[in-house]
Amino acid sequence: MTFEDWALKPTGDLVGYSVGAAAAGVRDGKPSRLDVALIVSELPCAAAGVFTTNQVIAAPCIVTRRHLERGPLRAIVVNSGNANACTGEQGERDAIAMAEAAADKIGCDPHEVAVASTGVIGVPLPVERIASAIRSIDLRKDAWDDVARAMMTTDTRPKSVRRDYPLGTLGSPETVHFRGVAKGAGMIHPNMATMWISVDGDTSTNDMVLVLTNGASGFKPVRKPLAMCAAVLGWLCEDLAQQILADGEGVTRVFKVLIRGAASDVEAMLAARTITTSTLVKTAIHGADPNWGRILAAAGRSGAKVDQTRATVRIGDVNVFESGAPRSFDRERIREIFSSPGLRIAVDLGVAKGKGEAWGTDLSEEYVRINADYTT
Amino acid sequence: MTFEDWALKPTGDLVGYSVGAAAAGVRDGKPSRLDVALIVSELPCAAAGVFTTNQVIAAPCIVTRRHLERGPLRAIVVNSGNANACTGEQGERDAIAMAEAAADKIGCDPHEVAVASTGVIGVPLPVERIASAIRSIDLRKDAWDDVARAMMTTDTRPKSVRRDYPLGTLGSPETVHFRGVAKGAGMIHPNMATMWISVDGDTSTNDMVLVLTNGASGFKPVRKPLAMCAAVLGWLCEDLAQQILADGEGVTRVFKVLIRGAASDVEAMLAARTITTSTLVKTAIHGADPNWGRILAAAGRSGAKVDQTRATVRIGDVNVFESGAPRSFDRERIREIFSSPGLRIAVDLGVAKGKGEAWGTDLSEEYVRINADYTT
Repeated sequence: MTFEDWALKPTGDLVGYSVGAAAAGVRDGKPSRLDVALIVSELPCAAAGVFTTNQVIAAPCIVTRRHLERGPLRAIVVNSGNANACTGEQGERDAIAMAEAAADKIGCDPHEVAVASTGVIGVPLPVERIASAIRSIDLRKDAWDDVARAMMTTDTRPKSVRRDYPLGTLGSPETVHFRGVAKGAGMIHPNMATMWISVDGDTSTNDMVLVLTNGASGFKPVRKPLAMCAAVLGWLCEDLAQQILADGEGVTRVFKVLIRGAASDVEAMLAARTITTSTLVKTAIHGADPNWGRILAAAGRSGAKVDQTRATVRIGDVNVFESGAPRSFDRERIREIFSSPGLRIAVDLGVAKGKGEAWGTDLSEEYVRINADYTT
Repeated sequence: MTFEDWALKPTGDLVGYSVGAAAAGVRDGKPSRLDVALIVSELPCAAAGVFTTNQVIAAPCIVTRRHLERGPLRAIVVNSGNANACTGEQGERDAIAMAEAAADKIGCDPHEVAVASTGVIGVPLPVERIASAIRSIDLRKDAWDDVARAMMTTDTRPKSVRRDYPLGTLGSPETVHFRGVAKGAGMIHPNMATMWISVDGDTSTNDMVLVLTNGASGFKPVRKPLAMCAAVLGWLCEDLAQQILADGEGVTRVFKVLIRGAASDVEAMLAARTITTSTLVKTAIHGADPNWGRILAAAGRSGAKVDQTRATVRIGDVNVFESGAPRSFDRERIREIFSSPGLRIAVDLGVAKGKGEAWGTDLSEEYVRINADYTT
C-alpha cells in the first residue's frame, strides 16, 4: 500500500486554524494582486524550521529562526513581491514590524509569529503597506487557496497538498490532518536535506521550511513510532517539491538522476546534483537530444571519483554506455524516453557502493526570457 | 608599456614549422568541411601540456599525456567533429592510430606526436577516414588559418594569436616568434590554472593546452628571467581565452568578476566562479537587468564565507550595495553599464584579504537553441 492509498479523503477544514490573504501592492504596478498572507492557530503550536544555507540570508529567515528558538508559534505571516534580502539592518527591523502587525491583529506576542518573504532581492520592504494589509485580512477556515496564491512570484499556479492519515491505534483511532502550502519557480536549489531538487542551481537567500502542529487531533506520536509521522511529512514535502519543479521557470520536463557505484553517498549526491544542474545536460533534455556523453562528462567534473573504464549510463531502460564502453542504441527510442514523463537517468560511477539521487528540470529559451528581465 | 605595445609586428612565417588541414568527413553530412589538422616542426620541440581535470578524460588526452612523458614532440594532430571521449579501449587505440598516421607522414616516432580531438562525446571515431585525410594534408608554412578552422566545432570563427617579442639582450637581440591557435564555444569551463573563464560551467572531457618550442630563435631563457617568457605566454593564453569567450555559444556579453575581502584566495576564486556560472546572474546580464541581488546571492551560496553586514557590490563604477546595505542608484545607468563592453562586477565579501577573479558570459535563448539539438 502506498502512502497515497493509505491517505483518507480530506474531510472538512483543518482543525484550529484560520487563514487569509490581502493585496498590499508590494510591487508597484500590481496593486490588486494578493501578496500578503496570514496563517493563524488558535492554540500555540510546536514548531520547527529549516533555513537556507546561503551565507547571504534574508532578514525574515534571521528573525524567524530567533522566534523559533524562543518557543511555540501562533502564526506565520508571508509576503511576496519583495524578498527583504540584502536590505541591511532596516530589513531586520521591517521583518520584526511584520511580526508585530500580525501579533497585534491576533493578540499574541510578536515572538510567536514566523515571518517569510519572497520576491526581488535588495529593495527596501514597503512595510507600512504590508502592515496595513495584514490588519485588513479576513481570517477564515477555508481560505488556504488564497494563502497559496499570495505567496506566488513567477509561479504560474498555487502549490498545496492536503491529506488525512489514520495514524491512531485501534483503541484510539485518531486521524491526523495534514495541510501544506509552498511557492517557488526560480532560484530553486534548496540545500537542506538528502533529497535534492534544482531548477536553476541558485540557492535562494530566503529558503525556509516551517512545520507547525497544534495537537488538535489528539494523536500522540509516543503511542506510534514517530517514524510514521516523519514518513508522512516526507511524502508531503516531496509532493510539494514536485509541484515546484513542474512549475519551474520555463520548465517543460522534469527528470530524476540516480547514482550508484560512488566512493561514498556524499560523492553520489555531488554527481547527481552536478548532472541536474549542468546546462549542457539540461538543454539536451529540453531538446530530447540523446547526447548522453554530457551526462557522464558532468559526473566526471563533479568532484566525485569516476572510473570511466567501469562506469555505466542508463537512460530509462536503455544502457547507452556500459562497463566503460559506448553501446549502440536506437536514437529514436532515447528521444521518446527523453520526451516522456517520468524520465530517469541512472549512472553507475564504477568505484564503490555510494548511492544518491536528485531531481532536475530542463533549460528552455523561456527560462532565459523570464530571467533576463525580472526586476523591470 | 603594455605587452601589446612591446610586441613587434609579426614578420614572415614561424621558423621551422609547416602546417596544413584536410576534410575527412568526421561528421556525416559535412564531408567538405576542414576537420583534420597537422602541425609539424622540423626540429624536435621541448613540449609541455596541461589536461582536463575531468575524471572522464578523453582518449587523446590520455595518449598525449603519455607521449609528453616520453620526451620531445615533432607534431600535433587534431580532429574536430568527434571528441573520442567515452569511447572505451577502442578510443585509445584510435587515438594511437591518429598519432601513427601522422608519424608515418612526416617520418618520426608515433610517441613524438600529440593528439587532440573535439566534438561529440561517446561516438566511435571514424579513424580510417581521419588517417586517410592526414596522409592527404598539404603541409605549408602559411596555412595556420586552415589549422584554426579545422579545429572548429560550434565556433563561428577561427581563434589565433600571433606576436613577435624582442626577448633577447642588447648584445644578442633575438626576437622570439609566438603563434597560438585555439578552439572552443561550448563546454567551456577549464579548470587548469588561477585565471578562470566559463561559458556554461561544464568542464570538457577534452581540455588540453600544449606549448611547443623548437629553439629556432636562438634565444636562451637562462640569459633573461624566465618570468618574462612566462608573462608573454600568459598574455597570449589570455588573448585566446578572450576569443573563446567572445565566440561562446549564444554569447552577447562578456563580463569579469573581481572578488576581494574573502577569507582566502581560494574562497575568492570560489565566489568569482560561482557568480560567473549562476544562471540567474547570466540571464540578468543578458537582459541588462540591474538585479544585483542575484550576484550577492550567488556569492553567498558559493561556499565562500560572506559577511553580509560588511559586503559591497560594485557594478562598473556604481556601488549598488555598500557595507551591508543597499544604495539607491540610477537603474538606467546600470543598464548602460551592463550593455557596454568591458563589464566589471566587483564584490567585497567583507571577511578578510582574499582576492580572485574570473571571466564569464551571459546566457541567451540562442545558447539553449544551439544545445537542445547538438548531436542531431
